[in-house]
Parts: sequence; C-alpha cells; structure tokens
Amino acid sequence: MQIARHIAEQPTTIVESYRSAARTLETYAPGPIGRVLLIGSGSSFNAGTVALPSMRAAFAGEVSVVGPQDFLRRPDTVPVRGTLAVVVSQSGASATSLEVARRAAAMGCATLVLTANAESAAAALGLPLVLMPAGDETIGPKTKGYVASVAALQAIAARFGADIADPAELAPNLEAALAAAETRAKALAPALDKVDTILVAGDGADFGTALEGSLKIAEIAGIPTAAYTIEEALHGRLHGLSERSLVLAIAADEVGRTEASTVREALAPHGIAVETVAAGPTDALPTPWCTLASTFLFQYMAVELALRRGREPDLMRYPGLTRRLAIKVDDSQ
Amino acid sequence: MQIARHIAEQPTTIVESYRSAARTLETYAPGPIGRVLLIGSGSSFNAGTVALPSMRAAFAGEVSVVGPQDFLRRPDTVPVRGTLAVVVSQSGASATSLEVARRAAAMGCATLVLTANAESAAAALGLPLVLMPAGDETIGPKTKGYVASVAALQAIAARFGADIADPAELAPNLEAALAAAETRAKALAPALDKVDTILVAGDGADFGTALEGSLKIAEIAGIPTAAYTIEEALHGRLHGLSERSLVLAIAADEVGRTEASTVREALAPHGIAVETVAAGPTDALPTPWCTLASTFLFQYMAVELALRRGREPDLMRYPGLTRRLAIKVDDSQ
Repeated sequence: MQIARHIAEQPTTIVESYRSAARTLETYAPGPIGRVLLIGSGSSFNAGTVALPSMRAAFAGEVSVVGPQDFLRRPDTVPVRGTLAVVVSQSGASATSLEVARRAAAMGCATLVLTANAESAAAALGLPLVLMPAGDETIGPKTKGYVASVAALQAIAARFGADIADPAELAPNLEAALAAAETRAKALAPALDKVDTILVAGDGADFGTALEGSLKIAEIAGIPTAAYTIEEALHGRLHGLSERSLVLAIAADEVGRTEASTVREALAPHGIAVETVAAGPTDALPTPWCTLASTFLFQYMAVELALRRGREPDLMRYPGLTRRLAIKVDDSQ
Repeated sequence: MQIARHIAEQPTTIVESYRSAARTLETYAPGPIGRVLLIGSGSSFNAGTVALPSMRAAFAGEVSVVGPQDFLRRPDTVPVRGTLAVVVSQSGASATSLEVARRAAAMGCATLVLTANAESAAAALGLPLVLMPAGDETIGPKTKGYVASVAALQAIAARFGADIADPAELAPNLEAALAAAETRAKALAPALDKVDTILVAGDGADFGTALEGSLKIAEIAGIPTAAYTIEEALHGRLHGLSERSLVLAIAADEVGRTEASTVREALAPHGIAVETVAAGPTDALPTPWCTLASTFLFQYMAVELALRRGREPDLMRYPGLTRRLAIKVDDSQ
C-alpha cells in the first residue's frame, strides 16, 4: 500500500512545495494585478478553493476559482488587463487546463502554471512555471499532489502580501496533526461499515477541504459523498440522509462549532450521526496550515474505509476510468 | 397531494412572475451597475446559478452567485460603488438573506429584494421589492417558488439588456415540456427502487438545474444526491457510484450530448446507468426557458420516487427540520 506512505510524507511535501514555489516566485513580477483566476479541475479546483481567502488577502481585486470548461465557455467575459490566471494541473496533463493556459496567455493574461510533473505537457508550454516537488506519486488517488498545490498557492499569496507563516517552522505540528488524524480515522471507521452516504460540510476555505475530503472518500472507498457549505447543507440537503448516513462538519472556528452542534442536535432524533472535524486537529497550527491539515482525516478515513471493504486503497474504485473518459492527454489514471 | 398541482401550475407561475417583475422594474433605475451579486440559499442560490448567463449578458461587469453566509463573512471585500445586490428569498424569512439585504443596503449597494411573500420580513425591509406571484405554496418542498425566482431574475436580465423572449408567448410549449417531463419521470422511476445515489451533472446554467434537481430528489424522496459540473463529475466523482446508482447528465447542446455519451460508455462496463436530460424536453423552447423547463423532470421524478417508497411527497423527508435548524425567522418548514 503506497498511499499510506504518500499520506505520511505530506508534511515534508508541504514544506518543500512552499519553499520551492517561494524561491521561484522571488523574481516573478507580472505587473499590477487587479483580478486573479485560479483555474483547475478535481483536486486542483479544490486546492484553489482552500487557497481563496489567502489569495483575497494578497490581491486587492476580485479573486475566483473557475473550472477550465467554465473558462473556455466564456473567455470573452474575462477582462484581460491586470488579470493573473493561475492554472493548476498536478499531472500537467489535464486536457482542458492545458487549453486554458494556452488561451489565457494568448489573450494577454499574466499566466502562471503550477504542476508537479516537470516532464508534462503543461511544463512544456513555455509559460512561467512553478514546479511542485510532490515527488513520485504514481498511484491513482493523489494526496501529496493536493497538499503541494495548496502549499504552492499559499506561497503565491505570501509573495503578494498575505501574512502566512513559513510551514518549515511548523513541521512538528504538521506531523502531530497527521498522527492525530490517523488515530481518529481508525476510531471512526468501524462504525461506518454500513454507511450509505457521507455528507461533508464546511465554509470558506473549509468548503475546499469538504470538496477534497469527499472526493478522496469517493475515489478510494467507493462510497457516495457530497460536499456543501454548511448553509447549503442546512437548506434541504440533510433530507437526503438516513440513519445509515454520516455528516462530517468542518468547524473552523467558534461559529462553525456552534453550527455543527445545531446540526447534530437537529439530526439526533433521526439517528443521523454528525461528527465535527476541527479546522486543525491540533491547536498549534496557525491558519492556513490548520485548514490544510484538516484534510488528513479524510485521507486516512478513505484508506480505512477501503481496507474494511476489501478494496485496494492505491487504486481508484474503477481503475482506468479517467483514461476511458479521455480527460488527460497522457496515460495517467 | 398538493405538490402535483403546484408542479402543474408552473407554466402559469413562470409567465406571471416574469410579467410582474418586468412591470415592477420598468421604473427601477439604480444608476450605472458594474458588479452584480445574486444572493440566496437553497433553491434561491440554485435560481441565481441558472440565471447567471442571462445576467452576464445584461451587465458588463462581474456577476456572481454568493451564499448569504459567504457575503456576511467578508462584506468588506465587496466594492460597493456600482454594485447591485439582488437578494432572493422565496419565503422572505431566510435569516441570513435578510441580514445580507440590510447590510448591503446600509453599505450603499443598490439592493433589490425578490420574495414570493408580501407579508414577510423581507418585504417589510423597505427596500426596492419584486414580489413574485408564486401564489399559495404552503407545503414543504417548493417548486413554484423556484421557477418564479428564475423567471423574475430573467426579467431583471431583460430589463438591463439581455435578449430574452417573453414567456407568455411560449406558454403552450412550457405545457408540452411539463407533459413530456411527467411521462419520462414515470418511465424512469420503476427502475430506481433500489437506487443508492443519484448524481446530477450539468454545465453553466444547467449546473443550477443540477443543484435544484438534486435538491428536490433529496428533499422529497429522501435519496442521497449530489450535483457537479460535468467536468468535476468526470474528475473522480464517478468512483463513488455503484451498479445501483444513476447519473443524470443535463445536455444543453451538442457538446453536452457528446460528453454525456462519453460518460455513458465509460460507465457501462461497471453497470452504472446514465440518462441524458435535454436542456429542454421539447425543441420548441428558446434559451433560457428550455433550461428552466428541464427542471420539471427532476420535480416529477422526486414525486414518483417518493410515492414508490410510500412517502408523502408534500412533506420533506424530515418535517420540522428547518425549524429545528433555526434558519428561518418564521415558522416555515
């Protein structure tokens, strides 16, 4: 099982990806930026959502996360002047992300490409490039690639003025968060042998974690999942749950903890379990690293749930599906 | 069963809500608008997403859909000058939407309130108001309120320059779409007695329909659902499905139909059913009304699936949950 090793290596990946991006960006000067688009699909989209608050703190103008297809369907609505397009593709092979990078650069956007694969089509575009040292992650479900993307995006935010601590000084706390997540995942999993669906809810940056956490559980354990902001979860979505369901509510702060309590009490009469996920599993991590560390629980849960179902966690539930869907320009899963 | 009557009344609701909003807006002149925020939760959020392309056609600046909590968490990032805040609350009682309307107006945004309830707290705010004649819809799951919201938002887009046909001239086509949706829902439902989850995928305005359609099935039939853009669905989400699952892919155009075919062929070896939902169930409806009409199938499916499970479709699966969650300022479900 390679994925356990990859998950365990994430604190190192975070530190190295942040540092590497910071070094690359030292000399990056795209001129005045009034608008930032974070563009990616799957885990890269989720990473953009997690980094959104930091990017908003760094740039005065509008910052948004956009799917590649959404960009390609309406590129004419993008005001190019002063627009920074950050295209994230961990594999460097997402067909639509590549097309966006080409199109944005041709339009005159400042275009920055983030990829973990130096040999990829994305790296070969000849555009300003941040290489993320996520290392060898040849298995299907990516975990290091995801945290590397978030760390690199945080380095961009820091380069343009957001107040972000260098994660190198926090490595022991990241390790402690990882250990705590593994322990909790192992404690939660045995009660979930008959779970029918897992709903993950979180606000702001935590909505990105909800997207990524729910995706990992779906990909690795093959369980139906969904992610919503807490507000959207409360406006009707809970009616899709049963006494076999689980709600994981990410509570970033006191407001989030209060909301999670309200949900737990409202669902208790119906026998629906609600578990709170702290933004950081330890109190010793400042934002945004505590937010990133809250992803660890979902990764470990995905592995535990897969193992209990007799699935190989290194594989997606349906190996080869990505290839058959023709969404990558190489042969990655 | 009142909901069947409400669903059937929707063509009339669409025509009346559009006309009523158009009349109200004749004299509405908020000054130059460079930025539009469509604000709402639940069905109102979904309605905003469906109306987004029309609003983008109408206004030169940035248009986005924002959840009320997201607005309240970062109101200071909203550039007020030339901002139009359109706050949609069908009940007029969503606590956070009311707070947003108050806050946006106090900040100096041009603030327009859309509600179906003339007696509501939202109507009493003293702000420019569009009353949506959705009529009496006292049951839990709202259908008329949703289409009324979309129609009123389309009237705003038309008032500010989008090219939109008056739906009054399309009433027979809307009726035909409704009949076709009912027939198809009744044909699809019997195969879904053991469905474990329904994933709805759609792009652009159809992503709004995917959100609303999946919400109605969850609320009324109590089945786990999720909504994604087609691109996000392809990037990992399909691994959460089983041979008991259903994918409903909304295909707005030739591109969408091709994508839906790709998904169907990729999932066929795993025994996962994929059904295509045309943007409009008949060819006789122009955009945006064909988009709105594609919602009918999901509403009828929700009712059929509830009936086959012995559930009362007029009730949400967990009646009273909204009250216990304290998200409304009145006693609505």
